[in-house]
Formats: sequence, C-alpha cells, structure tokens
Amino acid sequence: MQNFVFHNPTKIIFGRKTVPSVGSETAALGQKAMLVYGQSSIKTSGLYEQVMNSLAEAGVTVVEHGGARSNPLLDHVRQGIAKAKQEKVDVLIAVGGGSVIDTAKAIAAGSVVEHDVWKFFIGKKSIKAALPVVTVLTLAAAGSEMNSGMVITNQETQEKFGFGHRLLYPKVSLLDPEVTFTVPPDYTAYGAVDAIAHVLEFYMTTEDADTPVQARLMEGLIQNAMASCERCLVDPRDYGGRANLMWTATLALNGLTGAGLGRVGFPMHMIEHALSALYDVPHGAGLSVVMPGWLQWYKEQDAARIAQLGRALLPLNTLEEIQGPQRNDLALAERTIDFLRAWFSKVNSPVTLAELDIPTEDIPRIADNALGLAKVWRLDQYTPEIIRDILQRCV
Amino acid sequence: MQNFVFHNPTKIIFGRKTVPSVGSETAALGQKAMLVYGQSSIKTSGLYEQVMNSLAEAGVTVVEHGGARSNPLLDHVRQGIAKAKQEKVDVLIAVGGGSVIDTAKAIAAGSVVEHDVWKFFIGKKSIKAALPVVTVLTLAAAGSEMNSGMVITNQETQEKFGFGHRLLYPKVSLLDPEVTFTVPPDYTAYGAVDAIAHVLEFYMTTEDADTPVQARLMEGLIQNAMASCERCLVDPRDYGGRANLMWTATLALNGLTGAGLGRVGFPMHMIEHALSALYDVPHGAGLSVVMPGWLQWYKEQDAARIAQLGRALLPLNTLEEIQGPQRNDLALAERTIDFLRAWFSKVNSPVTLAELDIPTEDIPRIADNALGLAKVWRLDQYTPEIIRDILQRCV
Repeated sequence: MQNFVFHNPTKIIFGRKTVPSVGSETAALGQKAMLVYGQSSIKTSGLYEQVMNSLAEAGVTVVEHGGARSNPLLDHVRQGIAKAKQEKVDVLIAVGGGSVIDTAKAIAAGSVVEHDVWKFFIGKKSIKAALPVVTVLTLAAAGSEMNSGMVITNQETQEKFGFGHRLLYPKVSLLDPEVTFTVPPDYTAYGAVDAIAHVLEFYMTTEDADTPVQARLMEGLIQNAMASCERCLVDPRDYGGRANLMWTATLALNGLTGAGLGRVGFPMHMIEHALSALYDVPHGAGLSVVMPGWLQWYKEQDAARIAQLGRALLPLNTLEEIQGPQRNDLALAERTIDFLRAWFSKVNSPVTLAELDIPTEDIPRIADNALGLAKVWRLDQYTPEIIRDILQRCV
Repeated sequence: MQNFVFHNPTKIIFGRKTVPSVGSETAALGQKAMLVYGQSSIKTSGLYEQVMNSLAEAGVTVVEHGGARSNPLLDHVRQGIAKAKQEKVDVLIAVGGGSVIDTAKAIAAGSVVEHDVWKFFIGKKSIKAALPVVTVLTLAAAGSEMNSGMVITNQETQEKFGFGHRLLYPKVSLLDPEVTFTVPPDYTAYGAVDAIAHVLEFYMTTEDADTPVQARLMEGLIQNAMASCERCLVDPRDYGGRANLMWTATLALNGLTGAGLGRVGFPMHMIEHALSALYDVPHGAGLSVVMPGWLQWYKEQDAARIAQLGRALLPLNTLEEIQGPQRNDLALAERTIDFLRAWFSKVNSPVTLAELDIPTEDIPRIADNALGLAKVWRLDQYTPEIIRDILQRCV
C-alpha cells in the first residue's frame, strides 16, 4: 500500500425527507446564498419550492443562477462568478447532479479571486480559498457531492477539463433517494455507468496491487451499481434500489477507493471528455463506449488485473468454465470485458461510437482533443497512436 | 436503507515515515500537549523519542501521562484530567492502541468540565466541548483512531462502558504500519479479531437488510482482516500485511459500515465487556470466545444472515457441498460459525471460556455484569436467561 492522506470533511445527510434541512444547514454557513441549478425539472418536481421554502424559513437570502447543463460550460460559470461577486454571496447551494455541483464549486473558487477561473483548470493558478458549498443531490452518478473535484467544459477551446482541491469538498450534502424517483431510465443507467467508470479507473490503473482492502471495496461497489441500477429500471420508485445506487455512486469517488493506490490515472475519462467536448454526448453514454474499448487495449498490458475483477463479477458457472485446472487470465479478462459490455447494452447505454453517431473518420480528431487532457493529467504513456488504437476498438 | 448522517472529519495520514509529522499537526491545534501512552514499549521501540523530537522541533510543550493499560481504567483517566487542568493543556496526543486513544479522548472530554468524567458514560451528562486529540497508532485493532467512541473501565463498580460523541473524533491520526512490526503474534491476532467483531456486530444486528453496499464492504473487511493477519503472523515485518490489517481495522469502525443500517446493537461486545471487567482478559481474546457462542445462539434467530456471510467467506468447494439444489441456510450458517471458530483457533485466539481460565460456575455472575451494560446500551431483548444461554455456548 502506498502512503496517503485521507481527509473527507463532507457531512452527508442521507435518506427520506432530508431536503428540508437545507435551510438550517445553509444558515450555519452564510446568510446570502446563490442557488445553482440546471433546467426546469426541479421546478416541475416541486424540489425547487421545497428548497426555497426551507431557505426562507431559515432566513437565508437567495440569488438564483439556473441554466447549468450536462457537461457544464465555462461561460455559465463565469456569469455565476460575476453575479456572486456583485451580490456578495457567501455560500453556494447546488441543487442538481454532478454538472450543477461542479458549476457551484467553480463559482465558489472563482468568486474569491480576481483572475479568470479557467486558470485553475489549466494549472496557471492554485486555489487558496473558496466559498462554502451545500448540495442537494438529484442524480446518482458523479460523486461530486462528497469529493473535491469539478469538471468544466471550455466551449471556446473545446476542452473539458477536471480539477480538484481540498477546499472544494461540499460542507454538507443532502442525499434523498426519493428525489431521484423521477430520473428517466437513460440517465439512471448513465449514472450507474459513471459510478462503475470511477471505480474501474482506480481499480485498473493502481500503482500498487497489494491493496486488497480497496480492491474488495471496489468490487462490491461495481456489483452494487449494477444490481441497484437494474432495480431502478424495473421500478423507478424502488426506494432501496435508488438508495443503494445513490450511496454507491457517492462512495465510488469520495477518495476511499483510491487511498493507498499511489498514482492513478483517469484514461477512460480522458478519452470520454474528448467525446463530450466535441459532440456533447452524455458523460455516462460516452463512458460505456470508451470502457470496453480501453479494456480491450488494456488486457494486452495487464490481463491479470481484469481477470481479478472478473472473479468478483462473473457468475459462478462462467468462472468454473473458464478457470479449469489452468488459470487462464486472458480468457477470463475477455469474458469480463464481454460481461461489462453486455451489461451496458442491457441497460441501454451505448457501447459503440456508431451508437453515438460519431463517424470513424473522426477518430484522429478525437485523439488530438484527448491528447490535450493527457498532457494536463500527465498521462504520458498515452500517445496519439495509442489513443487512436483504443478508439478503433470502440467502433 | 435507513436514514443516516455520516460525517467523519478525522484526517488520516497513512504510511511509512509519517510519524514525524506529529509535531506540525499538533502545533496547528495547540502549544501545550499532553502525551498519553501505555507501558514502556514505545520507549524501547524508539517511537517515544521520535514523537518527542518532532514535538520539540514544532515548539510544542509536553506534559506526560503514561501508564494507560489494556482495558483502560477510570482512575488513570481521572488522574490525567487533573493533570491536564492543572497544566492547562490544550491538545491531547495519544501514542498507542485503542486503550491509549480512548484514555486520551476521555481526558479530552473530562478536562473541560467540572463534574466527574464517568457521568458521560452513564448518561448523566452530555458532552458539549472537548480538547482536540491527535493519535499515533501502534496497534491495528480498535478503530478508535478514526471514530468518536471510547471505552473505559470503572474498577470500583466493575463496569466497562463505552460511549461516543461527534466531538471525540481525533483531528489527525498518524498510521504508520511499520510502527506495528513489533506487535507480538497474540496481540496481532487479537487486533484482527477485534476488527472482525466490529464488522460482525453491524452485519448481524442491522435493522435493515436492504443494505448490500454496506454488506459487500463488510464482507471484504472480514476477508481482509483474516488474510492480512495471517501474513503478519508469517512475517511480522511484512509491510503489505501490516498496512492492510491496519487500514482494515480503521475502516471496520469508522462509521461507514453502519451508515444506513438503522439501529444496531453491540451484543457480543456487551458480553465481552463483562469478561474484561471481571477477569481483565485482552479484549480480542474475550471476543473470539464470545463470537462463536453468540452466533450459535443467533443462528436460531436468523440463520439466513449468517449464511449470507458464509457465501462471502467460505471456500468455493464448501459452498458447493453445502448449497446443493436446496438452499439450506441453517447448514450453511453452522459451517460459517465453524469456519470462524477454526480461524480464531488457527491464529491462537481462544474460543472457550476454559481457555481464558474462567470457570463455568461464574456464568451467572458474568451475565449479571453484562446486564448492566445491556441496560445502558438499550439491548432490551437480552434477558439474564439469554445471556446465560449464550455464555453456555462459549464453554
């Protein structure tokens, strides 16, 4: 196990009817809040009204900044920062999924400095302060509600970049699974796919394989992402399914899975970010295309690791069939990749570029875009050739 | 899943050569520290000197309070409180295992009030403030380094009582697995047993079985406690073994396993506390006696839950043999209990009262003692008859 620091100070308030505590939790952090949200769905669902009532009761004044969208945009963040400065906001409230929370985090960091917020993302400036952030989660997926990361897309440069800092952990996150009853089947599946991708990145790229504590945790999270997603697709109002999917997605990227693994990379996200930046595909949909392709490439580097995952995931009869007297990691790795791909298809998440309407001819362009992030994230082994090779396996 | 709040603010600094950061981490919290430790072992190992040097370099003044022992005593806590008040200490540093850390927590809570500290344990007073606590862990076992609990024995009343409060989370805990290289085989095993017991209490007494996220996490922790303990017994200087055991024991009782389970009980600890209070047996040694006995009793209440654990723990061939076409939870539960008992024996942790030199005639007396804690912990279903029944199964 590699040395690590684990310090996750986010307070999670989880369960039914927890949203009404947003007022008192926010009031403890500031009196003037900016409410960040996405499109109109929180208004039609009644969540907006519930949050506003609770804030009003707690005496919190609210400035609104709606309109955050999937793959959140830098321009929208910049507008939020200008508004937050002008209105002298002292706390952010994000009501939404990862995109909304990331927007709020970027505003929280950008409102306390004079320079442009994008400088944080390209490594030109470092965060020294940030406004506190409270979240009300509406989608089990990104894990942003309990971590210090954020991902923003710069439309001008067509860059979707991610970045993290310990001051960006939300102070409080309210997770009510009932809020996600209305998430449609496609986004329910994309959320589960996202959680699985977060786990897989750590699992596959760990610098240190003598980390069975983390491996067992991660295998359990993938099993649960699948099982709970399936429950939600059968019955969108299955509380247990929604609750287990939500908590799984949160734990999938709250720092625990990676603690002790040493240096890890996010190569699948790197390639998916290029897809999202260029074609604005839903993040989860892009990931379910990239993951099997990346794994197909990776099995030639480390079939044993993929096989280990397979031992945890595959049905017993498949394991018996494959393992036999001689251990065959490559065969088991292939079955594991097939198993994952089949599951993505089962929940109607795309598994080929074609399903995303992305033509094969675009592969060099996608690879070039991904390369920009490879440099920022220091994924030096990912040459244009390798990225193109991986993308060819996603066709 | 039941509603829960999860908020664990402890900063974990884990890995090789992390002890020298105790000075700077402590200095950020206070200038006058009380160093709490146990017997002479930290002096012979050089750890004491390392800690003192780091504190001196950081300009922290130190008052010492050594002599904490396994099953830490209220009198020793009271002496520490008197000294801390007199010396106007503003931060506690615990260098040791759970007993030392619990002693430091009790001093941290007791130093800021005028009444006797025991009132917290018997529910007569509640904690409203506490001095900050820093820990340097020397034993993988109790998990106190990342939780808000403490257990203290009142010699006068022969009560070993536990109690927790959110203000008692250590601010910083330094976990260097190399520090545990010198832990002898018996205490290495007792530590693993303690971690397993912590997991089992939650696993078995959960109010809500629709918590597969937590179940998979817990099953992984038990597997890892066993596997890493065995590595440490083969080679006490196996860094990976020590590291995985240490992190497992920390995660086994940091709040994550229980979040969402609803009301849980600690019935095995309740009975073990009676053994420790009356006979001063090592906590882990007492637990490995109580666990199989309690499970034998519990299998008549809920064999399915024990069987579920067995599916995660038992070797594949045992599972095949037992499961067959008809699912037989009772048979599987019995095999699971046998498996756990055999493992405790394998690592030389006792599995019968006789091995602890406790005569069968004492069972009524032990049951009476346990009953006191049953009342405080509100384990109302545990009548004297039931406790005696369980103890009979530990003979």
